[in-house]
Amino acid sequence: MTTVTELTLDELVSQAQSLVREIELLKGNRLSLDLTRGKPATDQLDLSSGLESTIEGNYIAEDGTDTRNYGQLRGIPEARALGAEIMEVDPDDVICWGNSSLALMYLSVELALKSGLWSDQRRWRNSKAPKILTPVPGYDRHFTLCEHLGIEMINVPMDADGPDITSVRNLIADDPDIKGIWCVPKYSNPTGCTYSDERVATLAALPGTAAADDFVVLWDNAYAVHDFQFPRKPLAPLLDLARVEGCEDQVLLFASTSKITLASAGLGFVAGSGKVLDTITERLNVSSVGPDKVNQLRHARFLRGRLEAHMAGHAEIVKPKFELVEEILSEGLKELDIASWSRPEGGYFVSLDTRPGLAGIVGALAAETGLAITPPGATFPYGVDPEDKNLRIAPTFASLTDLKTAMEVFVLCVKLATFEDEIKKR
Amino acid sequence: MTTVTELTLDELVSQAQSLVREIELLKGNRLSLDLTRGKPATDQLDLSSGLESTIEGNYIAEDGTDTRNYGQLRGIPEARALGAEIMEVDPDDVICWGNSSLALMYLSVELALKSGLWSDQRRWRNSKAPKILTPVPGYDRHFTLCEHLGIEMINVPMDADGPDITSVRNLIADDPDIKGIWCVPKYSNPTGCTYSDERVATLAALPGTAAADDFVVLWDNAYAVHDFQFPRKPLAPLLDLARVEGCEDQVLLFASTSKITLASAGLGFVAGSGKVLDTITERLNVSSVGPDKVNQLRHARFLRGRLEAHMAGHAEIVKPKFELVEEILSEGLKELDIASWSRPEGGYFVSLDTRPGLAGIVGALAAETGLAITPPGATFPYGVDPEDKNLRIAPTFASLTDLKTAMEVFVLCVKLATFEDEIKKR
Repeated sequence: MTTVTELTLDELVSQAQSLVREIELLKGNRLSLDLTRGKPATDQLDLSSGLESTIEGNYIAEDGTDTRNYGQLRGIPEARALGAEIMEVDPDDVICWGNSSLALMYLSVELALKSGLWSDQRRWRNSKAPKILTPVPGYDRHFTLCEHLGIEMINVPMDADGPDITSVRNLIADDPDIKGIWCVPKYSNPTGCTYSDERVATLAALPGTAAADDFVVLWDNAYAVHDFQFPRKPLAPLLDLARVEGCEDQVLLFASTSKITLASAGLGFVAGSGKVLDTITERLNVSSVGPDKVNQLRHARFLRGRLEAHMAGHAEIVKPKFELVEEILSEGLKELDIASWSRPEGGYFVSLDTRPGLAGIVGALAAETGLAITPPGATFPYGVDPEDKNLRIAPTFASLTDLKTAMEVFVLCVKLATFEDEIKKR
Repeated sequence: MTTVTELTLDELVSQAQSLVREIELLKGNRLSLDLTRGKPATDQLDLSSGLESTIEGNYIAEDGTDTRNYGQLRGIPEARALGAEIMEVDPDDVICWGNSSLALMYLSVELALKSGLWSDQRRWRNSKAPKILTPVPGYDRHFTLCEHLGIEMINVPMDADGPDITSVRNLIADDPDIKGIWCVPKYSNPTGCTYSDERVATLAALPGTAAADDFVVLWDNAYAVHDFQFPRKPLAPLLDLARVEGCEDQVLLFASTSKITLASAGLGFVAGSGKVLDTITERLNVSSVGPDKVNQLRHARFLRGRLEAHMAGHAEIVKPKFELVEEILSEGLKELDIASWSRPEGGYFVSLDTRPGLAGIVGALAAETGLAITPPGATFPYGVDPEDKNLRIAPTFASLTDLKTAMEVFVLCVKLATFEDEIKKR
């Protein structure tokens, strides 16, 4: 095999015809394959079946709280300690709340926007058009959240070490309307990169260099402990570094156990400075009489002293799926040199770039054969990938057998789209 | 014994002196009694210990959903059916979400205020000063919520059948800034009354008579099934009645299992028309990937077919406490004719009115002896009881022994405050 540009026009046409035939045959199979969302598979969920037997009639937290009754807005001590272990911060810096870190992000961003995080006059809505930096490709739910709250998004490119810092610096130094940056610092969604120590240090100091005095680093550490190998890959400690820089009130860290224990019935965490946690607690106190502390207790007991062992169980299930994706992409696309993709060592996604202009076509072809992939464009704000080239593959939910079929179909679609593009260009 | 006004000045002075001595003695006992919050007692929480053994490895909802994974923004069918049973509506009219009906109230009011409940241009903030009717005495958390969101509150008196409807009608007919009314229709917090059928029917039609076209009835049915006797006391069906009047888009019903199962780890419910539920679902979808469906499954299985039997278990614990309160208040205050109070047949509170101007004094006296009661004023918006006379007693959390002591102390405080008041007036 040779690269696509080395193929003759005849070869291209003949191969494209054969791909069309293969795809037509597949359509007859009425496949129903889904690589759209980062959902844990059933056997991953089964790893947490022990959660249901942690209570055994003892609902009392280590500080004596009866977890069944009202109260304790920041969560019980052992649940905050669990969050601290995941996020590598101090338990005092953590609120454990609800089943969703996304809900805590929404709450935090809404507070920053509308009533301020710091008990002072600063709030993003004082700007006529508050903006936020969105490293791309990124997580669609961050984008939806901002769009919903009327926060304009500005794309910043990602590289292997994190968001391109020169672009970031230039943008925030001049524009006081730029109020923050979204980061998924470990096994980034979808590129899979983990931010370098230097990049984290720079981001920790970033609020001090921004034209806006209410700039916030939003640190969605969704895959903090979701490594494929252990000991886990280190990530520099954002909150500690921010404290050194005097920027601790302008960073907010998020995590959850949604992909550690149960996607629907896990725990959400937010970490930050005392000042910011006070503001968040005050807001939570208006709309609730406290979090589900029984579920907090289940989690703290279940994961105590065995978080890494538990995550190794996930890795055992998930890693082979990523290896299969790599194998099939490599076999089908490497020599042709028609796409580039990530080889993450943890997390939930593989990010693949086609030639510019082809992602939408690949998505449509895949859909015709019964393979659902994350909608092209979804990894960019407003659903618009300016180069129409990024595709996100979520391999975890499918079985290995289904994943194999799905990835083979996917490769066919990428090849056909690229061959037809190449033919057009000749 | 005779009424306080029939006592001579000498008798008053002598009895007041003796009360002062009794209270001084009590202070030496360093009591620590708490009648502040409507919290279930430990033996009530124990009634739900079966929740932990409902899963037994089977996480699949009746529609086939694996409750452990993401999704199902309105909740699983059996949890919605449980909400429907509690609220006496159709399961299709219910969203089951989170552990707190208060959080759903906050969300709904915020939506009505800021982005509208109806996918049209109506939103409360289009008014310069949106207002809401607050029947008083009422629930402090409704008031805090409104104050936090900048919604002005207008007091409306309560009678035995619900909010005084003439006041309500007059207010809303003329003022387009009045956007809604808070109701706790069954065993109202704190007066304990249950709205009459006629009152419910009037309230169901109320939005049609309001000057505001975005008037909403907020129906916090917190004590829907919290009767002391069974079959449970009926409450007219607000949503059905509103549908007859064409007002179904302008009523929102709330309930939770916080005082059915576990205060911290129960389920929240909101019910309303399809249009309004769509708006709420859309908003939830921005900030979450779904509710804790495992807890929904626990609840649905645990309470299926035995909700009333379960509530009878609560009644067995709670009713004697209310009887004790009644007995001690009656013995201590009735003949003197110095206070009036409620004798609820369900719910969590007894509401007591002192002579005007004395509630604050009673609260302070109680605090000095080590008895915490709900802060005087808390049952009114902004913490201001215009007549300074209402006190809320929450008897559930204390043991019968503690409750007896607490109520005896309470009676002493009411008597002393009243005698001193009477002496001053002579």
